[in-house]
Amino acid sequence: MQGMNGKTMIVLLSGGLDSMVCAGLAREAGAHIVALTVDYNQRHRVELQSAARIAEAVGAVEHIVLPLDLTRFGGSALTADIDVPKDGLADKVPITYVPARNLIFLSLTLGLAEARQAQDIVIGVNALDYSGYPDCRPDFIAGFEALARLATRDGDKGVEFSIHAPLQYMTKADIAAEAARLGMDAAMSWSCYDPTPDGQHCGLCDSCRLRRKGFADAGIADPTRYAVGA
Amino acid sequence: MQGMNGKTMIVLLSGGLDSMVCAGLAREAGAHIVALTVDYNQRHRVELQSAARIAEAVGAVEHIVLPLDLTRFGGSALTADIDVPKDGLADKVPITYVPARNLIFLSLTLGLAEARQAQDIVIGVNALDYSGYPDCRPDFIAGFEALARLATRDGDKGVEFSIHAPLQYMTKADIAAEAARLGMDAAMSWSCYDPTPDGQHCGLCDSCRLRRKGFADAGIADPTRYAVGA
Repeated sequence: MQGMNGKTMIVLLSGGLDSMVCAGLAREAGAHIVALTVDYNQRHRVELQSAARIAEAVGAVEHIVLPLDLTRFGGSALTADIDVPKDGLADKVPITYVPARNLIFLSLTLGLAEARQAQDIVIGVNALDYSGYPDCRPDFIAGFEALARLATRDGDKGVEFSIHAPLQYMTKADIAAEAARLGMDAAMSWSCYDPTPDGQHCGLCDSCRLRRKGFADAGIADPTRYAVGA
Repeated sequence: MQGMNGKTMIVLLSGGLDSMVCAGLAREAGAHIVALTVDYNQRHRVELQSAARIAEAVGAVEHIVLPLDLTRFGGSALTADIDVPKDGLADKVPITYVPARNLIFLSLTLGLAEARQAQDIVIGVNALDYSGYPDCRPDFIAGFEALARLATRDGDKGVEFSIHAPLQYMTKADIAAEAARLGMDAAMSWSCYDPTPDGQHCGLCDSCRLRRKGFADAGIADPTRYAVGA
């Protein structure tokens, strides 16, 4: 990302490795960072602590942690009493998919962007090393960007909103390397869907597997403590 | 709306006259109604009581009142400490516009639809007697419907989501008449953006003006108590 000097960017900050790198890229680009974290009562709410650490580390001018209790809807292992799969990545969309989550979250960032008179939004979606969630794919992001114009007063006035997805075509190894290049401590971030009672990454969920493989493939030391070894 | 017999419909239920009529049309069509009301900490939170009354009146199988504090974003007279205009409808989008609200709310209904295995969503947007909000227009609704396929697992599997907007081309008088035809008591509903301390409609905000004119044009007795007369 370039040319953001002094411009306000809304960073969708879950607290995971991907959103951490997005926040770092926004800082590198010179943006004024307004970070939005949604507390959707997710199973791994511990990631909210990571989001707070990252927002502080990148010097966010504002960090909104917005409660939105998606357990009222359910339908996902992250928002209902359903076990998180531990036996490796599958071909189909896994039960950790949260219905329409990225659409809901991007819509919130768009409302926040309009309220802050910002035109730029950053989201850490990735279409390579991911779980096959439909709302991480490039055509969804492009479709949302097009709809943003119709959905807003500012778009109606000709303001173009840009949805930046700088990790879209990166592997998890690329992302781990990018974190290192940016001088960010990956230990600030949280990936695990199903933390152990004593606050470790489980090591077996899709998100842990992708994270671990990313560091290994990049040849970078993984600062994460996993409850179960590789 | 027709052919909904026994199908689940998600009704976006603010508690206003328009959403009341949508709920009545869903009931008339034979749908199983799952109502979603967003408590966005709006100035006129009293409308939540109306939503509860309406949900009960139409026999909703489920009514979710979801807190989502949009005052954290601000940027609107409904979600920030900004006066509600009282001097009549203007040509431009008024300050009561809430940034990206309908996109945020429709995204939530889509997540709920997917979690409940429903394909039909009803929203009471209107493009005739309205305040000029961009996210009430037909091209926005059509754009959202198209994006719903890309945004969801079910859409990815070929499930088509339908966004029903049965009031789209009705005047407010048509809507008042429709409420009467459905045998619904309009006094259940709430329209005013800026309720008086003793809980009356102010009579002067855009929403009150549209409501009052609708009943007058339809030649139907208006059950609403307005603080300021016509």
